[in-house]
Amino acid sequence: MLMMSARHTYQRSSIMEIPDARIVIVGAGFAGIEVARALQKSRARVTVIDRNNYSLFQPLLYQVATAALSPGDVAVPIRALVHGPGMEVVLDEVTAVDPGASVVKTASGRDFPYDILVLAAGSTYNYFGHDDWRQTAIGPKTLNDALAIRRRLLLAFERAETCADEAERRALMTFVIVGGGPTGVEVAGAIAELAKASLVRDFRHIDTASARILLVEAGPRLLPSFDPHLGDYAKMALEKIGVETRLDTRIEDVDEDGVVANGERIRSKVVIWGAGVKANPVAGWLGVEPAKGGQGSVAVAPDFSLKQFPNIHVIGDAAHLIAPDGKPFPKLAAVAKQEGQYLGRLLRDRLAGRVTGRPFVYRDFGTMATIGRSSAIANLRGFNLKGLFAWLLWGAVHIYYLIGFRNRLVVLINWLWAWLTYARGARLLTGKE
Amino acid sequence: MLMMSARHTYQRSSIMEIPDARIVIVGAGFAGIEVARALQKSRARVTVIDRNNYSLFQPLLYQVATAALSPGDVAVPIRALVHGPGMEVVLDEVTAVDPGASVVKTASGRDFPYDILVLAAGSTYNYFGHDDWRQTAIGPKTLNDALAIRRRLLLAFERAETCADEAERRALMTFVIVGGGPTGVEVAGAIAELAKASLVRDFRHIDTASARILLVEAGPRLLPSFDPHLGDYAKMALEKIGVETRLDTRIEDVDEDGVVANGERIRSKVVIWGAGVKANPVAGWLGVEPAKGGQGSVAVAPDFSLKQFPNIHVIGDAAHLIAPDGKPFPKLAAVAKQEGQYLGRLLRDRLAGRVTGRPFVYRDFGTMATIGRSSAIANLRGFNLKGLFAWLLWGAVHIYYLIGFRNRLVVLINWLWAWLTYARGARLLTGKE
Repeated sequence: MLMMSARHTYQRSSIMEIPDARIVIVGAGFAGIEVARALQKSRARVTVIDRNNYSLFQPLLYQVATAALSPGDVAVPIRALVHGPGMEVVLDEVTAVDPGASVVKTASGRDFPYDILVLAAGSTYNYFGHDDWRQTAIGPKTLNDALAIRRRLLLAFERAETCADEAERRALMTFVIVGGGPTGVEVAGAIAELAKASLVRDFRHIDTASARILLVEAGPRLLPSFDPHLGDYAKMALEKIGVETRLDTRIEDVDEDGVVANGERIRSKVVIWGAGVKANPVAGWLGVEPAKGGQGSVAVAPDFSLKQFPNIHVIGDAAHLIAPDGKPFPKLAAVAKQEGQYLGRLLRDRLAGRVTGRPFVYRDFGTMATIGRSSAIANLRGFNLKGLFAWLLWGAVHIYYLIGFRNRLVVLINWLWAWLTYARGARLLTGKE
Repeated sequence: MLMMSARHTYQRSSIMEIPDARIVIVGAGFAGIEVARALQKSRARVTVIDRNNYSLFQPLLYQVATAALSPGDVAVPIRALVHGPGMEVVLDEVTAVDPGASVVKTASGRDFPYDILVLAAGSTYNYFGHDDWRQTAIGPKTLNDALAIRRRLLLAFERAETCADEAERRALMTFVIVGGGPTGVEVAGAIAELAKASLVRDFRHIDTASARILLVEAGPRLLPSFDPHLGDYAKMALEKIGVETRLDTRIEDVDEDGVVANGERIRSKVVIWGAGVKANPVAGWLGVEPAKGGQGSVAVAPDFSLKQFPNIHVIGDAAHLIAPDGKPFPKLAAVAKQEGQYLGRLLRDRLAGRVTGRPFVYRDFGTMATIGRSSAIANLRGFNLKGLFAWLLWGAVHIYYLIGFRNRLVVLINWLWAWLTYARGARLLTGKE
């Protein structure tokens, strides 16, 4: 029924079929890359604009932040992914879109004219009005974020090792993770593994196993998007590996000395943010109102075009589309990827003069989150899994989806080695604050 | 004969045997790490001080700088290498030594008292009085150096792609490498491979194969430490893969816009330095005169102790010791490693009350340098090799010596993959200037 209604509201955009149309794609994440790849063999002139030169496998970024993987294991240069005579990749930052002139404006001052625009700009962490917390409580969204978190984590242990003041040392060895969703659960589990296993023989004056790892969630349960008993299981599994969880706890302040949670000051030198996402400012670029309750995302038609501008499409985390079940499609990598595949095929068909009226259907193969080194939870089409088997499945699925054979094999070796030895090869202090 | 003379001049230091002596090791490179490892099972209380938290496999660092390997492939955390009840690792920077008080002073303000001091502080690039060139013409010595070079290289191509000014574009695509020793030859070959093979399909507005790669050497021949015909071969092999070589050419100035070489201004946005090394300021810390013609290194007795301070030892690139052949031991990774092994055993024996009078003997297994993707030159105990076979040998030797099994296997996979596909997985723009 709901499916039918989605099909019913579908309308073809009014864009003419132009085989060599200029298509500008903003963002080379899961969604944008798929559109570009689908158009690779078309006659369209495609420009992919991204502020980074790499496409990131976000689901494993937390492993870079916690020193288990190297940046090169989870990121691939965009230029290595997008090839073809009509394809162009531009390293630049979009600042505005002028739908009247059909032009994208960038920070470098260049204008990019388009016939069709695809905005796949993704999302960033939501600080719920406290953007000043962003510098202190980094969320793992880009490689630089993950490397900054890694540097802070490793430096905290180094400083604790030489710290004479007991209270300061406790603050250095207290890690606060904000947000009990998959990111928070995975980061907390990985830090626990780092502190209680990988580093445990490395220091003389501190016992890294005594590190306090605090996962703070505002709601009554971890992993609110999963079945309640999986959230309960995650809490139990995290506590077993030494993570302290605090539910129904709101972060009221973040500063260089820690956080205030439910009125209590908790001293900490490393606060990591994973509390909800909000869309990158696509609505602002376009001068349109964000969708209600869509965390900054933009309401789109079933073909991901905008009502006001039928030649502009928004996909991925920045798009707000109601699924047949009446809820908006979730902001997940798998959704973004499938939306990119859908839109890429749709544009390719239109450019070739083929009319396609098929609406977007999200095939949910499942969602999962890992907890430390041998446990995970998963929801596979309503079928719930937990424990070691879920963890093995998690590993297999992530290896499989990692772009590019080389990455897959290297990550597999890194994981096998880390699993056997507890070692973390990537715990290198590089870069500067 | 010469060997006998070395044995003859050897004298035991006057240090007492103290099984639980406090030993401070400054620097965790090839030399320092070996001393620490040799003492791991002794009763000595060992403190390793390094300003980085990793030990670096220097011979492959140029591959990080040219986006072929990740930092984690060539670096291992010091804490992962040095274990044991008496071992301590400190992340700090040495600023001075007070031999009277037997104390090492650091940037953090902490003092480290010692009974025996080992200074293995290594070397840095020699700018021959032009230290202001250091910011512009980085030499690959630390991971941060290599990542800065990688960022500049990749950004130069990105900027050239969107550059409208022809002269500016040429400057962006001109890479000047200063110094025709192994570092310069390897960096030039790797950049040639990057520009002419790996990146060749990646850009639309520039032809990366037209990049100008200029290797400048002040002397009359490349690879002056090798047999002349190997230097000639390297020149020919580099020119074959598109590197322009300039011999007898002195760099007279370096600035943000390029270099002045033999009076000619060459516009370039990426200048890489590999022209000779000088010892880190061990002589300054100690308040002693550097050895004559030793590039800042300190003259040591055959057991690497200082005449003035028999409980202070200097090894590696910072040590100046005349070999039996009448020349100082060269500043090579293999020499530093063997000196560390020698001194580690010597100290272990002394602490255990065993008298050992064996002098240091450097076993020269050979020196080699790679040129691009299928060629190398090698000098194996006077036996000269060049071409593909030397390259295969170079690969095998470097894999073998890479510390730690995991690194070895991952590097092997990266290399095989890169060799088969010409791809460079690590060409990621991270960090900031």
